[in-house]
Amino acid sequence: MRNWIIGEGPENDIVMSSRARFARNLKGVPFPWLLSPEKNAALEREISERIKEVLSGVIHISLENLSPVERQVMVERHLISPDLANREFGGFVISKQEDVSIMINEEDHVRLQVVLPGLRLKEAFDYAKEIDMRLSRVMNFAYEEELGYLTCCPSNVGTGMRASLMLHLPGLVRTGNMGNIEEGVRQLGLTIRGMYGEGSQAFGDIFQISNQISLGKTEEELIENIQLICSQIIIKEREHREFLRRRNRFEFEDRIFRAYGILKSARILDSVEFLNLLSDVRMGVSAGLFEHLTIRTLNELMVDAQPASLQKKRERIMDPLERDIYRAEFVRGCL
Amino acid sequence: MRNWIIGEGPENDIVMSSRARFARNLKGVPFPWLLSPEKNAALEREISERIKEVLSGVIHISLENLSPVERQVMVERHLISPDLANREFGGFVISKQEDVSIMINEEDHVRLQVVLPGLRLKEAFDYAKEIDMRLSRVMNFAYEEELGYLTCCPSNVGTGMRASLMLHLPGLVRTGNMGNIEEGVRQLGLTIRGMYGEGSQAFGDIFQISNQISLGKTEEELIENIQLICSQIIIKEREHREFLRRRNRFEFEDRIFRAYGILKSARILDSVEFLNLLSDVRMGVSAGLFEHLTIRTLNELMVDAQPASLQKKRERIMDPLERDIYRAEFVRGCL
Repeated sequence: MRNWIIGEGPENDIVMSSRARFARNLKGVPFPWLLSPEKNAALEREISERIKEVLSGVIHISLENLSPVERQVMVERHLISPDLANREFGGFVISKQEDVSIMINEEDHVRLQVVLPGLRLKEAFDYAKEIDMRLSRVMNFAYEEELGYLTCCPSNVGTGMRASLMLHLPGLVRTGNMGNIEEGVRQLGLTIRGMYGEGSQAFGDIFQISNQISLGKTEEELIENIQLICSQIIIKEREHREFLRRRNRFEFEDRIFRAYGILKSARILDSVEFLNLLSDVRMGVSAGLFEHLTIRTLNELMVDAQPASLQKKRERIMDPLERDIYRAEFVRGCL
Repeated sequence: MRNWIIGEGPENDIVMSSRARFARNLKGVPFPWLLSPEKNAALEREISERIKEVLSGVIHISLENLSPVERQVMVERHLISPDLANREFGGFVISKQEDVSIMINEEDHVRLQVVLPGLRLKEAFDYAKEIDMRLSRVMNFAYEEELGYLTCCPSNVGTGMRASLMLHLPGLVRTGNMGNIEEGVRQLGLTIRGMYGEGSQAFGDIFQISNQISLGKTEEELIENIQLICSQIIIKEREHREFLRRRNRFEFEDRIFRAYGILKSARILDSVEFLNLLSDVRMGVSAGLFEHLTIRTLNELMVDAQPASLQKKRERIMDPLERDIYRAEFVRGCL
């Protein structure tokens, strides 16, 4: 179903998705990295069974049943973290709509997340909270009065919550204003990163903004804080797009239509160039320049043209050049 | 009619046109630059009348009746030289097919040229020779036994003939072999220059090869010499295109289709970028990559998208940015 990719949501030409995530650990059970392979596997089975008791229609997938390419496909669809994909043991449970995913034995025993399309952070949070409540009925989560939820990484201690928004900000990037935004966001206690979280580069003008700490503030305060900052960034992004358009309409459209022309005709397309061209076209769709294209088509394309997703589609491992050739073919077919 | 642009000829995917030109001066009449405006005008009328006596269906156009843009259009269609276009006085006579043009009071009193599409240098020469013979019947050309025809510039003294070929050489340019070719051509007593002759740069991988001197050799020898060298260049160009294609078919096609994609979608297109993109597409047509495109379409586009031709079509003077915007619109419409 790929909810965040194909679904609708407010401001979804700028806010690609809203995500709320909780980190939880079982009381009295060592963190995953301290467990033997056997204990790890047993714990994963145990947790997945418990989840199924309180959530209907979910699917449990163990990493050991996935090829490296298939794991990477899950990362590209934002269902699991790159960290989990690289682990020897662990697994995850996902809903059919792919709006809920619960990682088991990543850094923490349980990491549940809800991802919704557009600016729906409060909704994602409420939904995640409800799932957390259900899970609490069947699992005993480590919690201390003074600290809150205990987690493997100190930055998650407290509410154990991370709320994040994936934003497409070509206007601010083109006008050279992302530096200011990044600095402002950091001063307000948030982090800003690339599409795949920690350490990833911001290709295609896509940024993830999330809370840096989860200690000392209520979840509601954290959510409100991010929402507020985000609304300001959205206003600024719209202003800068409008500025680019007004300064020279032909230059603005030239760049966008060239990007579209290249996507429609290239025979070799690497993933970085692809994301950058897609960024221009996305801005064009948002500006009403393409009647036949929708944000949904571009979202699908963005995910499906990622390296692992392409290989999964072709059902074989491809070297980078082969992939770039197939990506070009695939993109031409879609547009 | 624009014969060289829309006509057919051998090897015309590489040899865009063949041109033979004769420089002639009237015996006992000072060179044009020594004449007063009145005498210049009288001489132009006189010569044009004589030409009409021996050539039927030709049109005489005086520079004074052309706007600067219209003069430039004639240059872009290779009917007159940039030198004539910049003069205060002078004119030219052209055939309806535009395969014959006779400049009056450029550097010399009479400069007659024949331009044919493809590799048809001998044919162009024979045709020019015939016209020269006809003109000799009604005009007394300055000729000395020892030197041959007398001309304003010493490099034209002798046969007064210049034979040239306009070649499209993207293969040799892309593989970095044009330097060798240029050196070789010069050692053989020929010159190699850009599309608009003397001092013009070689945009769009288009080169003009012509004889440098016309003294001390028969016309037939000069023609044969150029034909021979040109056949070798054609072979080399085909080899290098094949090399590019074989080395990496996808890279070869990627560049060509991207060029096409940009031409089909850009909103601003300056003339240098336009010629360079057109060069790639032309190579693609020659390689059979575009079913719906012909060399003729590209030739027409190349000439019609030049600055003056665009302004003539729009019937107004445009600044460079306006022109680049209109060029993009025009090119999109044609492809």
